[in-house]
Amino acid sequence: MSKAIAQQAHLASTVLKTLSDEQRSLALYQIKQGLEAAKEDILAANRKDMELAETNKLSASLIKRLDLSKNGKFDSMCDGVLDVSNLEDPLNRVTLATELDDGLTLTRLTCPVGVLLIIFESRPEVIANITALAIKSGNAAILKGGKESLHTFQAMAKVINKVLEDTAVPQNAIQLISTREEVGDLLKQDKYIDLVIPRGSNELVRNIKENTKIPVLGHADGICSIYVDKAADLAKACRIIVDAKTNYPAGCNAVETVLFHSQLVQDGSHEKVLQALREAGVTCHLSSELFKDQPQSVLAQESDFSREFLSLDVAVKSVATVEEAILHINEHSSKHTDCIVTEDKATAEKFLAGIDSAGVYWNCSTRFADGFRYGFGTEVGISTNKIHARGPVGLEGLVCYYYQLRGNGQVAGDYKGAGGTRVFKHKKLNI
Amino acid sequence: MSKAIAQQAHLASTVLKTLSDEQRSLALYQIKQGLEAAKEDILAANRKDMELAETNKLSASLIKRLDLSKNGKFDSMCDGVLDVSNLEDPLNRVTLATELDDGLTLTRLTCPVGVLLIIFESRPEVIANITALAIKSGNAAILKGGKESLHTFQAMAKVINKVLEDTAVPQNAIQLISTREEVGDLLKQDKYIDLVIPRGSNELVRNIKENTKIPVLGHADGICSIYVDKAADLAKACRIIVDAKTNYPAGCNAVETVLFHSQLVQDGSHEKVLQALREAGVTCHLSSELFKDQPQSVLAQESDFSREFLSLDVAVKSVATVEEAILHINEHSSKHTDCIVTEDKATAEKFLAGIDSAGVYWNCSTRFADGFRYGFGTEVGISTNKIHARGPVGLEGLVCYYYQLRGNGQVAGDYKGAGGTRVFKHKKLNI
Repeated sequence: MSKAIAQQAHLASTVLKTLSDEQRSLALYQIKQGLEAAKEDILAANRKDMELAETNKLSASLIKRLDLSKNGKFDSMCDGVLDVSNLEDPLNRVTLATELDDGLTLTRLTCPVGVLLIIFESRPEVIANITALAIKSGNAAILKGGKESLHTFQAMAKVINKVLEDTAVPQNAIQLISTREEVGDLLKQDKYIDLVIPRGSNELVRNIKENTKIPVLGHADGICSIYVDKAADLAKACRIIVDAKTNYPAGCNAVETVLFHSQLVQDGSHEKVLQALREAGVTCHLSSELFKDQPQSVLAQESDFSREFLSLDVAVKSVATVEEAILHINEHSSKHTDCIVTEDKATAEKFLAGIDSAGVYWNCSTRFADGFRYGFGTEVGISTNKIHARGPVGLEGLVCYYYQLRGNGQVAGDYKGAGGTRVFKHKKLNI
Repeated sequence: MSKAIAQQAHLASTVLKTLSDEQRSLALYQIKQGLEAAKEDILAANRKDMELAETNKLSASLIKRLDLSKNGKFDSMCDGVLDVSNLEDPLNRVTLATELDDGLTLTRLTCPVGVLLIIFESRPEVIANITALAIKSGNAAILKGGKESLHTFQAMAKVINKVLEDTAVPQNAIQLISTREEVGDLLKQDKYIDLVIPRGSNELVRNIKENTKIPVLGHADGICSIYVDKAADLAKACRIIVDAKTNYPAGCNAVETVLFHSQLVQDGSHEKVLQALREAGVTCHLSSELFKDQPQSVLAQESDFSREFLSLDVAVKSVATVEEAILHINEHSSKHTDCIVTEDKATAEKFLAGIDSAGVYWNCSTRFADGFRYGFGTEVGISTNKIHARGPVGLEGLVCYYYQLRGNGQVAGDYKGAGGTRVFKHKKLNI
């Protein structure tokens, strides 16, 4: 069953990759219209999920994430599909062109990755985001939602499947799998599935990474750090750190560790930042050299510096130099997003070059690590991988490339290194 | 032990990534000089490996690959290091720049992947190639050679380690592991090692892929196909297919499957190609519709169409249309390099867009799939991955990217979507 789903997705992907931008974008436009037309049905299904969530006493924050009816969420979901369809085509961009020899031309073009398996929890609007990103980037997608949003998911799946019937996009390009199918079996289909994108809890992501040979794009932990340099503007430091910690503490781009230059600790000016955090309701886990018995202060454990709190808690310690800050972050952070607060450009440049993370910031909140804020329209997730796509992943992170070589009967044996005498020209062409 | 090696490599990588192109290139120049100065010692060690190989009755082709002394191999190895040092710097290239808002600027820059673990068999000159590519691209590398080239490997390692002492490149950036350490333990160091690159037999690659959570770049099989269209120039087809099969049958870019349009079979013109193959000593494994009892012809098994022969054998069948050829190749090829021979541009474009492989060729030999021939100087291998690097992998395949965000105290909470009212400008900047 899982094999058939994956194989159908692969076949659909080989058709989808040959469609024009117009064909892919038109299908998205039709999906947007279809969703809008079915608004009442989808919201009715959503209410059923909400009722079940309340009956099952799920957490208030989870129920809030499930709800599609509030704050214009449904309409902005539909608008999001249109936004993606209006983005520049990420496919068939020529990124390298070389004349190897007379009449033998090499080009490198962007192309879809192939088949994506996307596994997500709760938030049902993700279905529309991901469907849009997948079709626009020419990738077939198998979507597997969480059981909490099952009814909403099924109602939206029905619309999307129906709409695709009348478009150039093969129907199997988007397959919405309800919870009864086993994810475990899909994770074994490495012949047909090219990339797995999990969106959800650390446990979900870690579990998927442990159980598949298919490349996984995403992140388990978001352990972001902010280093407050001796040359920091402390007012900026307060604003940035309070925003990074409290704007959305459950977000992966929230700050979890704050490092102070020891000079700030010696003259007591770090207290201004700690005070601002306490006033915002944050509990500071202070390392021993900083610890004083104050309200909302606890003595930090060593493990707090490798911990994603996802709550109004932050680990705090002092370092002697920017180099020590860089070493600490490269060892403890999850390579997501880290920031320096300083007015000293040379120190900032050292930090920007030395940190080994997907995002390195200077004097601004780590909360900016987000596809919408980066101007990508939307994102399929944030990657802490060190290869392929890093940071917020939009359309560009969903494409790879391939090489075309166009000749006129050329054979390798005529060239030096393979038995012949001809020498390659390797002339760079304008793209 | 393995953990310490990996950790040291990681630490070295965080220094190496901050060095200038001049510092990295100068180190390569010094390595080249060091190798040249030690030519006699290295060739003496190489003779020891050759003698052992003869005593152990290794195959003639393996002994030939071991030999560094013939055909100017040693000198071209040294020149290769210099060639890489003279290539354009692949690091710190700005590939995206967006003003998110006044004074809040996002840039995306290329950066090293981090730590590479490179495992290779026999050919000792690979050490110099890979050391050059790793240092130039700012990556630390752990190199593990095969036991057949142990003495050569140790002699070269001694030189490289000694030379690095006097350069800006940390000594631990290149660690050469002799065969006594266990690869298995290194494959578990996924906290510190970012990418594994195996170069060797299918068994080696498959074994590594089975035994690590670290991304693996490379290919196990090279099953390349050539489709001869009804509008093919048969003289070109003969030249291309004979070169692709016989120029180096053990190469991963050699052709293993030939598909003929059925019209060519009906009028018997495919016989011209088969005859040329037979004259070149090739055994044709013909599917039943083509099979005639002729010399050097055998009836193909179904499995022959998913087989990397690595010998003077080729699987041959007929297809009714170019679409059928594309379907066959997308299902059976190893996504390495596939080719169409035709004079019809529309058919060629359909094939070029429809094939799901790292290289898709029109009227030229699959043997061109090679980093040197593509103009990359040299390569660390050929990737059939669908994400990150595909095809021949040179410097560009050894870099990833990261985002810098430079602000002046901006916080997310001031912007729409995070509680505030400001709207992002998302102004594209010239790169």
